[in-house]
Amino acid sequence: MTTGSDAYPVSARTTLKRRPQRGRYDRETVHAVLDAGLIAHVAYLAGGQPVATPTVYWRQGDAVYWHGSAQSRPIGASGGEVCFTVCLLDGMVMARSAFRHSVRFRSVMAFGTPRALIDEAEKLEALEAMFDRLYPGRWAQIRGPSPAELEATGMVALELNEISAKVKTDPPLDFDADLSLPVWAGVLPVALAVGTPEPCPRLTPGTPFPDHLADWSPKGGRRRGQVSYPDI
Amino acid sequence: MTTGSDAYPVSARTTLKRRPQRGRYDRETVHAVLDAGLIAHVAYLAGGQPVATPTVYWRQGDAVYWHGSAQSRPIGASGGEVCFTVCLLDGMVMARSAFRHSVRFRSVMAFGTPRALIDEAEKLEALEAMFDRLYPGRWAQIRGPSPAELEATGMVALELNEISAKVKTDPPLDFDADLSLPVWAGVLPVALAVGTPEPCPRLTPGTPFPDHLADWSPKGGRRRGQVSYPDI
Repeated sequence: MTTGSDAYPVSARTTLKRRPQRGRYDRETVHAVLDAGLIAHVAYLAGGQPVATPTVYWRQGDAVYWHGSAQSRPIGASGGEVCFTVCLLDGMVMARSAFRHSVRFRSVMAFGTPRALIDEAEKLEALEAMFDRLYPGRWAQIRGPSPAELEATGMVALELNEISAKVKTDPPLDFDADLSLPVWAGVLPVALAVGTPEPCPRLTPGTPFPDHLADWSPKGGRRRGQVSYPDI
Repeated sequence: MTTGSDAYPVSARTTLKRRPQRGRYDRETVHAVLDAGLIAHVAYLAGGQPVATPTVYWRQGDAVYWHGSAQSRPIGASGGEVCFTVCLLDGMVMARSAFRHSVRFRSVMAFGTPRALIDEAEKLEALEAMFDRLYPGRWAQIRGPSPAELEATGMVALELNEISAKVKTDPPLDFDADLSLPVWAGVLPVALAVGTPEPCPRLTPGTPFPDHLADWSPKGGRRRGQVSYPDI
């Protein structure tokens, strides 16, 4: 567990019960995990039933944002508490015993009540921040949202007041007695990788694939087609 | 929406409110999505608060399984209803307008009350099924669980009675008026890819990387290092 002056406060809900040494509360780690992910799962109550819905999200400072149709209201926008979870699978940890098999991962879990964005200027700014996160350089090239489109876009923000990260990077942690078993042990790293761009069937012939996307990766800055690995 | 004789029944909770044409209830599609994923998010109530916790899972027939420490009880094993969600991100859909940007994905959402596995033989069988799913061929090579290890492993099953899949494979769906904008549009496919195996630091020198893992992929059967794409 790491805390510090630039750390989020630890609450009862963000205290790790299992393996507390894997808990991280410092902004650097928490933000790094959030900024490496694309999909969050938001848990909320729907008629008393817990529901986990996946959604694209992005971070701005000490808040995360997501959006959806204003008609159906974005996930968790009904005023109740949510749990916001991001999990990045980094590797399959293959030990010498069945019991010690596990996975490498980085995850973040935040609790709080999302706030619906109402102000048109704030929504526009948040959308631009989403593009800056997902597709740096693209916002200036596309048609921005019309007032009607902006109104049809529901958007929420969740302030990061109660949040923790959990990071597991271990190699196989076999018992000593199992070390001599004649079986390969180690880690198969996995990561979200980018394939060959697929042009829109209606693309105007001659429209080039843009330079600013040539190195696009979920985390940004890596070469296309190259598997990227976590820094933490 | 596809249903049929080999489809799961549609309930109020599994009826898609938004874009019902993307809903699938046939076993083939639901199982294909489940069998391509490694991590699920399980939403459950903890002290009245919805929580979404990521976990490795696997499918056997018409049930999904996950496990955890018996000491802390696996997620959702406290007898309440859960929502079991798997989401596979397949591509970033880049349109000519901000409004029409979206993602390709396959997801599954199931509702129900997990059942804790008590019987030792049933737990052992489920563990073996997990290895068959994740690492075909490995179960015979490793040390199986001792009775104490099996007892320390909490395991739950969720019968797939109430489940739906949602699949989005569209190219950019721009408005006709935007088609002539001079900007590249298309899809950047993404997929979980496998990197170079990292041997355990304590591996007995000369232990070969096993043939049966050479083609390991999250979905199975694809070549290592190659980005794999969905079949549906």
